[in-house]
Amino acid sequence: MGTQKPIITKTESLPPSEAKWISFERIHWTDAHGKSRTWEATSRTTRGKSGVDAVAVAPIILQEGQPASTLIILQYRPPVGTICVEFPAGLIDGEESAEEAAIREMREETGFDRIKIVDVSSVIANDPGMSMTNMVLAVAEIRMDKDEPLPEQQLEEGEDIERVVVPLKELYQTLIKLEKEGKMVDARLWHWAAGIKFALDYRTSFALE
Amino acid sequence: MGTQKPIITKTESLPPSEAKWISFERIHWTDAHGKSRTWEATSRTTRGKSGVDAVAVAPIILQEGQPASTLIILQYRPPVGTICVEFPAGLIDGEESAEEAAIREMREETGFDRIKIVDVSSVIANDPGMSMTNMVLAVAEIRMDKDEPLPEQQLEEGEDIERVVVPLKELYQTLIKLEKEGKMVDARLWHWAAGIKFALDYRTSFALE
Repeated sequence: MGTQKPIITKTESLPPSEAKWISFERIHWTDAHGKSRTWEATSRTTRGKSGVDAVAVAPIILQEGQPASTLIILQYRPPVGTICVEFPAGLIDGEESAEEAAIREMREETGFDRIKIVDVSSVIANDPGMSMTNMVLAVAEIRMDKDEPLPEQQLEEGEDIERVVVPLKELYQTLIKLEKEGKMVDARLWHWAAGIKFALDYRTSFALE
Repeated sequence: MGTQKPIITKTESLPPSEAKWISFERIHWTDAHGKSRTWEATSRTTRGKSGVDAVAVAPIILQEGQPASTLIILQYRPPVGTICVEFPAGLIDGEESAEEAAIREMREETGFDRIKIVDVSSVIANDPGMSMTNMVLAVAEIRMDKDEPLPEQQLEEGEDIERVVVPLKELYQTLIKLEKEGKMVDARLWHWAAGIKFALDYRTSFALE
């Protein structure tokens, strides 16, 4: 792991002819009233055979003697200029399926290679008012023996990713604590944690059960 | 409401000089090892005084004789070329606070003007590997009398937004059903629903309580 605090030195307008990873689109469309309109959108240039840009994994860690936990990752994200708190995630490579990418990203970012994918979401839209990008969310169970340590990460060059194991019951409060330290939480992870907190707080009064 | 099915007629590359709503940035940064790097990012041009691009609202509808419900909206989203399923949401205007925008968007998109905001999230990142955009999630309670009808929406010109009230217990299955009909679910709404489902399914085995 690197030891310096990452820093943004300059932000400049990017000519689209020089953009490798992202592109700008103007969409011409006809609305429900038959009126012709346009819309501005961003997309990724990297979408492969799966038709899906990225996969995230909600890990459920079940270890004897420990509370059921999840694993979140902390990494510096230049677009938001700070450490971001996210689920393990990554782009799906050209020929990969979403599930293959989920397994690969878990191995690289968390070191776990014995994971059991128990659920895969529909293809969902990251920010559909502006972005053509999409993703799937996989839920993966990981069983660990008592006192088994976390495995070694297998990071790619230039990746500085810290792992944090968090008991599921403490996830929401942990995200608030990390945000107070100056980190920024990914919106999707926040919503998942907020959903859990909501269900537990209100299960009786809202007759969720 | 319009009656035609919206359709994309053409998608073309958008020169950034003609983009009004979005922009492209090249970020120069120094990583944790002291190495100079660049990163490509997208942003919105509309961010105002609040420093936050958008707000979404998780409505909790409490009506006598009815199960606790939420309200989701369906609208055609050109970037994904289909009807998208989302929480009520919108951009925060120049001088507004996130809370003011939440109340305004709820009035416009759902017609409700007596809402009680019970929680406001941290500022969270929509897609921090690519996008500088951020948002906050507000949770709002809405109390309705027995047999009270949904209020009139106050949509702006060109907005075609359908509302669906969904019992919270059925939200996750409803999202799957809507996706099977060809609609696309917003990633953040999906994660919230998945969090609720997860907490309820596993509350005993994972000792969440």
